[in-house]
Amino acid sequence: MTGNWSRWGPDDERGALNLIGPDAVRRGMSAVRSGDVVSLALPMIAGQGPIASMRAPMQHFMLRDGGDYAAGRPERGGMGWADDSILVACHGTTHLDALAHVWQDGQLWNGFPAARVSSQGAAYCGIEKAGPVVTRGLFLDFAGQGPGLAPGEAITAAQLADAVRAAGLTPAPGDALLLRTGWLRQWRDGAAGVDSCPGLDAGCADWLRDSEIALVGADNIAVEAFPAGSGAVMPLHVAAIRDCGIYLLELLDLEELASRGAAEFLLMLAPLKIVGGVGSPCAPVAVV
Amino acid sequence: MTGNWSRWGPDDERGALNLIGPDAVRRGMSAVRSGDVVSLALPMIAGQGPIASMRAPMQHFMLRDGGDYAAGRPERGGMGWADDSILVACHGTTHLDALAHVWQDGQLWNGFPAARVSSQGAAYCGIEKAGPVVTRGLFLDFAGQGPGLAPGEAITAAQLADAVRAAGLTPAPGDALLLRTGWLRQWRDGAAGVDSCPGLDAGCADWLRDSEIALVGADNIAVEAFPAGSGAVMPLHVAAIRDCGIYLLELLDLEELASRGAAEFLLMLAPLKIVGGVGSPCAPVAVV
Amino acid sequence: MTGNWSRWGPDDERGALNLIGPDAVRRGMSAVRSGDVVSLALPMIAGQGPIASMRAPMQHFMLRDGGDYAAGRPERGGMGWADDSILVACHGTTHLDALAHVWQDGQLWNGFPAARVSSQGAAYCGIEKAGPVVTRGLFLDFAGQGPGLAPGEAITAAQLADAVRAAGLTPAPGDALLLRTGWLRQWRDGAAGVDSCPGLDAGCADWLRDSEIALVGADNIAVEAFPAGSGAVMPLHVAAIRDCGIYLLELLDLEELASRGAAEFLLMLAPLKIVGGVGSPCAPVAVV
Amino acid sequence: MTGNWSRWGPDDERGALNLIGPDAVRRGMSAVRSGDVVSLALPMIAGQGPIASMRAPMQHFMLRDGGDYAAGRPERGGMGWADDSILVACHGTTHLDALAHVWQDGQLWNGFPAARVSSQGAAYCGIEKAGPVVTRGLFLDFAGQGPGLAPGEAITAAQLADAVRAAGLTPAPGDALLLRTGWLRQWRDGAAGVDSCPGLDAGCADWLRDSEIALVGADNIAVEAFPAGSGAVMPLHVAAIRDCGIYLLELLDLEELASRGAAEFLLMLAPLKIVGGVGSPCAPVAVV
Repeated sequence: MTGNWSRWGPDDERGALNLIGPDAVRRGMSAVRSGDVVSLALPMIAGQGPIASMRAPMQHFMLRDGGDYAAGRPERGGMGWADDSILVACHGTTHLDALAHVWQDGQLWNGFPAARVSSQGAAYCGIEKAGPVVTRGLFLDFAGQGPGLAPGEAITAAQLADAVRAAGLTPAPGDALLLRTGWLRQWRDGAAGVDSCPGLDAGCADWLRDSEIALVGADNIAVEAFPAGSGAVMPLHVAAIRDCGIYLLELLDLEELASRGAAEFLLMLAPLKIVGGVGSPCAPVAVV
Repeated sequence: MTGNWSRWGPDDERGALNLIGPDAVRRGMSAVRSGDVVSLALPMIAGQGPIASMRAPMQHFMLRDGGDYAAGRPERGGMGWADDSILVACHGTTHLDALAHVWQDGQLWNGFPAARVSSQGAAYCGIEKAGPVVTRGLFLDFAGQGPGLAPGEAITAAQLADAVRAAGLTPAPGDALLLRTGWLRQWRDGAAGVDSCPGLDAGCADWLRDSEIALVGADNIAVEAFPAGSGAVMPLHVAAIRDCGIYLLELLDLEELASRGAAEFLLMLAPLKIVGGVGSPCAPVAVV
Repeated sequence: MTGNWSRWGPDDERGALNLIGPDAVRRGMSAVRSGDVVSLALPMIAGQGPIASMRAPMQHFMLRDGGDYAAGRPERGGMGWADDSILVACHGTTHLDALAHVWQDGQLWNGFPAARVSSQGAAYCGIEKAGPVVTRGLFLDFAGQGPGLAPGEAITAAQLADAVRAAGLTPAPGDALLLRTGWLRQWRDGAAGVDSCPGLDAGCADWLRDSEIALVGADNIAVEAFPAGSGAVMPLHVAAIRDCGIYLLELLDLEELASRGAAEFLLMLAPLKIVGGVGSPCAPVAVV
Repeated sequence: MTGNWSRWGPDDERGALNLIGPDAVRRGMSAVRSGDVVSLALPMIAGQGPIASMRAPMQHFMLRDGGDYAAGRPERGGMGWADDSILVACHGTTHLDALAHVWQDGQLWNGFPAARVSSQGAAYCGIEKAGPVVTRGLFLDFAGQGPGLAPGEAITAAQLADAVRAAGLTPAPGDALLLRTGWLRQWRDGAAGVDSCPGLDAGCADWLRDSEIALVGADNIAVEAFPAGSGAVMPLHVAAIRDCGIYLLELLDLEELASRGAAEFLLMLAPLKIVGGVGSPCAPVAVV
């Protein structure tokens, strides 16, 4: 076992988020320069989604609206209000994977049984166990001003370590690493599809664990490159989430962050506390 | 007109969140003492909700789960994964109201037409216009160690100002004000229902505007006391959201925050970018 | 094995509906006297349902409506239209159970594996395999002018046979049997809850099979009495659906049919062809 | 006014379905020859739909399934069961339009206000007012063994009358007319899209009214040809539904019926009683 199981005790369901404590929070705040707040989330548009081909697009239902009043619904004293609901695939827009999202050989993170992820939700390692994330973020821009990485192109552990060094970054326990591959911009331009994307190689998991990274995010579908050269389905998902308890944050919009030129920043995100959820849409923010 | 219309230009759809800039962000960070992160969100449990009587409870649908594999779904190389969707009333759990949520005499904040809040969502002042909120939070505990305020009990502007003073707080532009009324604890104990709650009086809007508060949140259904003594439906909603562009953050869980004894803290929250949404579930955090 | 497995071949997924052929259709038509059409379905009202405590109530979403036009949506040449969606628990209103709905010892009707009823739906014996039902209906009114059966009261096979005889009925292969227990009227009057209901005893399954009944319906939650005296969960479900391939039709409104005094009629119902569904809402009709 | 308003009184919300009485039911039964039952409904497949581009595809959610038990959910005495829900666009598969579905100049059928079709559903002329339909069906096959009509090709009133005559049919009050255009087969073959379809011309409404047809169905999206040559949006919808109270039944699968060679048959269909619904999925049957 080269992962992190038992590191935070046999009952732990939060994994590498345990690495984030007051030190990481202060380190994140110390990275703030301008005090500007940058959203890293995609818009959620009814009927659309970058991975609509895999998952159903969001539906937005208005339960009461201005039209009802225009059509004669009696207003009390001139006051009116609107109400709505959404049906959303938890992994269909900017989202954080729960540790219950993937497993290998029937075991989730820390050995919890995959069989307990049932129609009633995840009995263990659900997204409500994660809690909010406030820490220092480190930014690596693999796309820069160029076209971005090629479809399926994999970043190796050595390349990742080089990029961190070249950016002048020194990871500390509990940091979050955000990677811009260029996929999102390509997808928006119609130049990339959803059947492949560039990203990390499964071999990066060891580096992430050794660097004590708590969370890795990217502007792509799966953080990792796919299809994987090895033929495995989502090998970094298994190696990071299941073996090491490291969280993946997917479908980020890193275009504005990239334009700010900040290698370090304060990252804040808070998944919805969906009890038994295996992921949650969220709207991460960077304070640069 | 005693509100804030036109203050940020005739096209503004963000209202008092415009008060939050780098100064407010730094002020928030300066308030951090321990570096501990406290979630202010309720859990989202399928089939349940504090205001289930008004809105449909959340539904959580598992699209793929460990049971499928246990039942023989072929795993590729031992790897399995789970996927889910939620159907959620945007105002049915901890959430931020959009400026498009309420109107008076056919006009939203800044004069936008309520008629454009239709089955296709809010054309103006939707929740996607709000953006993330990072600022200093001020905490007022009206419940303390006691049972909390009585059902429907209203806090007047004078009482609010007194409480701020008594807590040693000095509001600055863009601050967020969080109020603990005790309603949530009462509701959990079965001692309070959803047909009334204690909260602010409509007359507080002027004080909030003059104090340049950007957002007010509470551990109750509507921030404001209801039913209102005046017979109006939701008068503070109109006076704060529609007249002043001040945001309301509802159904907060402030129990842990109260136990920390921090009068000031760093508040971070980010509504989902639901295009045309009139509210968004979210999971606010306080860094104390 | 005292059921019907293999009777229609090892691959059969329709069970006792195979008993319905042109003879049953003609027999049904011959039973028509007045030519009046009586609906046997409950209304589907958003937010309500007789078994809301077990399943989520229906939600009805308007995607476009007259309010949108009243509020200024441009009509083309004066023409407008409305559109809607429903989210409905397939077993939460008047519905037909699929043969995939229940199982015993891991086996569905005819031995198909329950394990293939997964998050992707029922691979075998889904409701789309049933097809429409047009046959003769036989009506037994156990409630008559009285208050109806008591909560949980069970009708034994002997009582069922007596009632058939007393009504002057002679079952023929493929007939459908509809039973009025009085539960629905009691429920509407607030005199009955959803935690018990009167209905058939599990021992009736043999009589139903020997009488070659294709389908049994009732004005209650489960056709069968529950809780069952034996302590079994839903023993008639297992004996009828799983052992004999006999279909259950639940939550019927038989009040108007009862008032017609017709012991025989033409029954027509057609479940939605939900591929992989384990039940379907439907609106059965009796032509009397 | 050349329509049917007021014909069944000023409060009528059922329109031409009033033409169906015991005579029409008996006429339908008299048309039965073989006693075979033919389904006219499309399968409902999660994620798919012939008009998915306009409306969201159906979603099928399993709330409990065999996988849960395979994964260890305790069975009581070996008994297990499955449960499901569907989210379906009411006009996205085989369905009956409610009279509340369309309007002209702010008025529905019989003059009811379109403004009362709001986010809370249709206050007038909702699908729950229709009730079940049991009558004689008349079949016209415009596609025959050939490729079917061309995209957008319109059948005029004269052509419709000729086809009825050529088929040896004599409409009687309350009959239903089903038309096969060939569109569905073309769509399945990938030879037709959803942005146009062949069907009736708006001028057919007068003939339908004069022939006292209660309902018209077709194997296409809208019964009528579109885009309409006149530039109007859906002129037959207005002329038939709104002016004459004649119902439209859309997205029928008439392939098997066509193969039976029956010009007349017993038609039975029953929309779900969705209170305030502007349409309902249904599974019509022909007894030939």
